[in-house]
Amino acid sequence: MRITIKDLAEYCGVSSGTVDRALNNRPGIKLKTKQKVLEAAAKLNYRPDFTARSLVKGKTMTLGIVLFDLYNRTFAQLLNAVELKAKEYGYFIYVALTNKDPDNEKQCIEYLANHKVDGMILFTVHQGEEFEHYLESFSFPIITIFNFLSERWQYIGIHERGAMKDVALFIADKGYTKITYICPPLSFQGKRNIFTQEERLKGLEEGLSERGINHVKVIKQNDYLDVLDGLVFKDGDMAIVCSCDLYALEVMNHFKEKKIKIPEDVGLMGFDNIDVLKYISPKLTTVEYPVEEIGKMAVESLIYKIEDGKFNTYSPMSLDFKIIEGESI
Amino acid sequence: MRITIKDLAEYCGVSSGTVDRALNNRPGIKLKTKQKVLEAAAKLNYRPDFTARSLVKGKTMTLGIVLFDLYNRTFAQLLNAVELKAKEYGYFIYVALTNKDPDNEKQCIEYLANHKVDGMILFTVHQGEEFEHYLESFSFPIITIFNFLSERWQYIGIHERGAMKDVALFIADKGYTKITYICPPLSFQGKRNIFTQEERLKGLEEGLSERGINHVKVIKQNDYLDVLDGLVFKDGDMAIVCSCDLYALEVMNHFKEKKIKIPEDVGLMGFDNIDVLKYISPKLTTVEYPVEEIGKMAVESLIYKIEDGKFNTYSPMSLDFKIIEGESI
Repeated sequence: MRITIKDLAEYCGVSSGTVDRALNNRPGIKLKTKQKVLEAAAKLNYRPDFTARSLVKGKTMTLGIVLFDLYNRTFAQLLNAVELKAKEYGYFIYVALTNKDPDNEKQCIEYLANHKVDGMILFTVHQGEEFEHYLESFSFPIITIFNFLSERWQYIGIHERGAMKDVALFIADKGYTKITYICPPLSFQGKRNIFTQEERLKGLEEGLSERGINHVKVIKQNDYLDVLDGLVFKDGDMAIVCSCDLYALEVMNHFKEKKIKIPEDVGLMGFDNIDVLKYISPKLTTVEYPVEEIGKMAVESLIYKIEDGKFNTYSPMSLDFKIIEGESI
Repeated sequence: MRITIKDLAEYCGVSSGTVDRALNNRPGIKLKTKQKVLEAAAKLNYRPDFTARSLVKGKTMTLGIVLFDLYNRTFAQLLNAVELKAKEYGYFIYVALTNKDPDNEKQCIEYLANHKVDGMILFTVHQGEEFEHYLESFSFPIITIFNFLSERWQYIGIHERGAMKDVALFIADKGYTKITYICPPLSFQGKRNIFTQEERLKGLEEGLSERGINHVKVIKQNDYLDVLDGLVFKDGDMAIVCSCDLYALEVMNHFKEKKIKIPEDVGLMGFDNIDVLKYISPKLTTVEYPVEEIGKMAVESLIYKIEDGKFNTYSPMSLDFKIIEGESI
């Protein structure tokens, strides 16, 4: 049985108001009475009922986070940072995973809403006017990460297009003239929110165009290794750019089997700088961006909004990124 | 403003009971009235108030999970499985990370209790009578994973001692006669719950003893690479066993720098079979165990207990493990 304030009051022979004053450290109570109540609370194992309090104060001190999954190393690092930062402010975290399924995403959002989170961090699969209208029906603030929705929603992230433009200039200046880009999520174009991926492709094309390279072979298929088998690698004039490190690692494994040498026969580049790269040779050249910083800033901005009624003045897409030079390109 | 059942009733000109029947698909209501109520609920954007309902039904439909962190790949995989399985049953997940800090752990448990989780999955840092007494003060069921507490607590996991005993027999039968075991968490012996690590060491010693090897060099220091620098590797008669794959990968990187060959100069073995091993050469020999299965079983057993008042009859430490043969030993 849960001990209530009323039980404590009866036990101590005082009013519920007196118990409340003692527990919440408010004035208007004698020190001796306060001590008596606190000792009784400890003895009877009293615990404050946050659910009931939340109904009164209108806050649950919880944030919801909606992510694709935790298999992707980057998302696990992000969630770790989000949890630690939220706890600093006394907030706790509900995690809901969509598995990139749009129906699942709506179910996740509904559940978090039903559990009355004070705010939500959303890595969305959906996009479009109808979805934004749906999100606006919720009374809590929402902050978006990775996939941008529109200017109406606070967003924390790096300048994806700028990052991939830098990659393009970097590889063009290394002398590569044929560029292949691997990004299976692009196959969902028009069906799901793949803002990040679309921006990266635009950045790549922009940068290459500045260096006079006007054609990029884009592989959107999931069986991208089979597609690579149809290509010829000689003279080391082709660079394969992958939209994330995991694709690059798959390519690396595949090429090892096929005795295709990196970077002698073909250059290879990833994106994310996942922590396991340090165990892999040749060292993969990649792009590092502050995923933990994204998590922390999302939490801080969200809590600022919850507690002060407005978002922090973080500019969107302003976080730093940098190319990490390895041995693969 | 949140729309209540009362608001809906007023809007439709029916009683609250009628609205409740329509929303919860109960009998005793005309089809036409039901349709009217459901249309009004959609139009006014009504959402059920789970927090209020939880006060009535005494359930929040949430489970708490207390883990060390999500940097360890294994924990991220576990949490992913836990979230998916819980959602199948309509439960949502609060995640709280302890960073292996005992004080932090108590704070996490208190917070989850304050948010009235219906049950808790606990990977504990604490141990001992006082801690168990503390846990018993909570009214919700608790299931332990990885670190065993005592027979009083439901536990899901593999037979850690048996797994490492198999490792010992495996390497002894390969002809190794000098064994070094790397396990920095053992330095917390007597201070924290390191049940899993203690069991593994016992298993290793038991198995080696059966093969006539009665001495194991155990490295408990965090600077285990420095300790290795003081050892001599020749003739390939030494095997280094690591309590997790990440230590083994660090050793592998270190030996590459030092031009010490694996397995020609020294054998190396890990534990966990983390998914990134497939990108690393030489292939690490390791032990695989079903981390996702542990997560799923913990959720199912916990929900069974919450809803039916008793735990499932899973025997503890009964899950399968197997040695994955690579090229490192």
